[in-house]
Amino acid sequence: MARSESELILVAGGAGFIGSHLVARLLDEGREVLCLDNLQTARPSNLRLLQGRPGFRFVEHDIVLPLPETVTAQAHRITRVYNLACAASPPQYQADPEHTMLTNVVGTHHLLRLAEKAGARFLLTSTSEVYGDPEVHPQREDYRGWTSCIGPRSCYDEGKRAAEALTFDYARMDRAEIRVARIFNTYGPQMHPDDGRVVSNLICQALSDRPITIYGDGSQTRSFCYVSDMVDGLIRLMEAEDPALRQQPVNLGNPVELTVRDLADRVVEMTGTRNQVVYLPLPQDDPRRRRPDIGRAAELLGWTPVVTLEEGLQKTCAWFADELAMDREVLAAE
Amino acid sequence: MARSESELILVAGGAGFIGSHLVARLLDEGREVLCLDNLQTARPSNLRLLQGRPGFRFVEHDIVLPLPETVTAQAHRITRVYNLACAASPPQYQADPEHTMLTNVVGTHHLLRLAEKAGARFLLTSTSEVYGDPEVHPQREDYRGWTSCIGPRSCYDEGKRAAEALTFDYARMDRAEIRVARIFNTYGPQMHPDDGRVVSNLICQALSDRPITIYGDGSQTRSFCYVSDMVDGLIRLMEAEDPALRQQPVNLGNPVELTVRDLADRVVEMTGTRNQVVYLPLPQDDPRRRRPDIGRAAELLGWTPVVTLEEGLQKTCAWFADELAMDREVLAAE
Repeated sequence: MARSESELILVAGGAGFIGSHLVARLLDEGREVLCLDNLQTARPSNLRLLQGRPGFRFVEHDIVLPLPETVTAQAHRITRVYNLACAASPPQYQADPEHTMLTNVVGTHHLLRLAEKAGARFLLTSTSEVYGDPEVHPQREDYRGWTSCIGPRSCYDEGKRAAEALTFDYARMDRAEIRVARIFNTYGPQMHPDDGRVVSNLICQALSDRPITIYGDGSQTRSFCYVSDMVDGLIRLMEAEDPALRQQPVNLGNPVELTVRDLADRVVEMTGTRNQVVYLPLPQDDPRRRRPDIGRAAELLGWTPVVTLEEGLQKTCAWFADELAMDREVLAAE
Repeated sequence: MARSESELILVAGGAGFIGSHLVARLLDEGREVLCLDNLQTARPSNLRLLQGRPGFRFVEHDIVLPLPETVTAQAHRITRVYNLACAASPPQYQADPEHTMLTNVVGTHHLLRLAEKAGARFLLTSTSEVYGDPEVHPQREDYRGWTSCIGPRSCYDEGKRAAEALTFDYARMDRAEIRVARIFNTYGPQMHPDDGRVVSNLICQALSDRPITIYGDGSQTRSFCYVSDMVDGLIRLMEAEDPALRQQPVNLGNPVELTVRDLADRVVEMTGTRNQVVYLPLPQDDPRRRRPDIGRAAELLGWTPVVTLEEGLQKTCAWFADELAMDREVLAAE
């Protein structure tokens, strides 16, 4: 698609893991992208991959604060607003729970108001965490979830639920055209090596000399979506026209479920590590099972993931191996 | 208790139904009270009952906005912050769902920061609505609830859940001493006659010539707490010292459960109305059953309601009869 000077896509959180892949893909398609990020959890190297690319512009900004003039002055050109801004792993979002809650509620509110002013379509990346520790399996979008609103995960889980509520209210009031994705576990290159998420944890441990850590007995399950599939789903959701999408969130994730123990075994086999496996206590409110029902995405977006776990893990391991090698070179040179 | 010039109690939402009773009670006890209210749903007559009383000061302010200098300048004197600010009946809180969400999250945030700055104890009035349409009965505080985060009640339900999350995070971070009450249906004099809540609806209909309206078949249950009991519970909760209260919400409500149909029958009998009874469709996501388990309040606060439904309804009917008579006098004089 040719780049149009008149259309601009805003991506909040565009320097984060999924955000940077989304921005790269939009630039590949010839789009002009305005990336907002507070660089709280973003990797500077993700941003360096984007900077200098034609059509890319970066504004360092925390969406908890009112949007800066540099952004609002562009409102007339903005046709799409993607909100991917929020620390997403428990150690990161629990480090400043007040900020996590405000990012989800106040930040989403600022972006919704921008979308309203711009007449742009707004997409919220919500999360499978709105299902909490689910009592039904797999999780369909009409399942209301089982979250604690008083526990240490609540700043994120309840923050995202509140963000969804606000977003659907904007649609009910006809103030913005909206889309809501509930993102399940996603992995791939450009993940933060230290964000405490299971795939990056296991791979980085296997590729270094640290023990492989498994929380609980490893029998809890997860479903892992490769990042290119996730980005494809997000763009399809944003561009799909079915009116049902104004009232309904859509699960995006890979329905292939495996235990954390199985995942660890695969990583161990793929990397050939001989590191010790260590079992640690399960964190409070850690969900036991997680698998998306993606029937709605298949029906309304024509989307299903296509990258196998084998293929995705290999790409991710290869990328982390390169990253760690570069880190070692940098350390050796210092 | 003698009024101390050095101690000030802030009550946000102090011109509302429960708020005005709370303020009156605190003034009765000789306290000095700073009442904040945006007068969005407050009855002016509630405020007139308080104005001029020794120790009472009113500031018209919407807590969605940063607290005014007139309030922050008093921080050094503030020892208690009660947050009762939010429209509480579905027609009222759904009229501006964006404002409802922001009142709960941003408003609570502003008051928590004030409490932190002041070193004051903060009490959030949360709600039985955090239990949604409950699957367990009666509702204990450890029940996580069954709320929709995408429906028309979500601005209130999810807003309150988010406000609880933020409040307990302030306690986890040791930034404020906190208390959280989950208030069940409350009734009594000074209710808004047109707020769409079942007790005021039924009484006002019975005392005028309008049909008695019942939503659904009237088999849904509620539990109604008389307002003096509620105020007593709130003050006990604020002043109780058990450390468990920093981590746990407390249900406040009357565990005597009856169907809406039963309630209507009692009001009809008490008022002697011959008005027709009309059945209307049940609103979306209306809870089927609601009854608090108040074991925690009994144990930690030594609190149980003492006003019977018979006594409370009689007082409430008498008050509404006076109000409606005054309204008719005013109309006749115009």
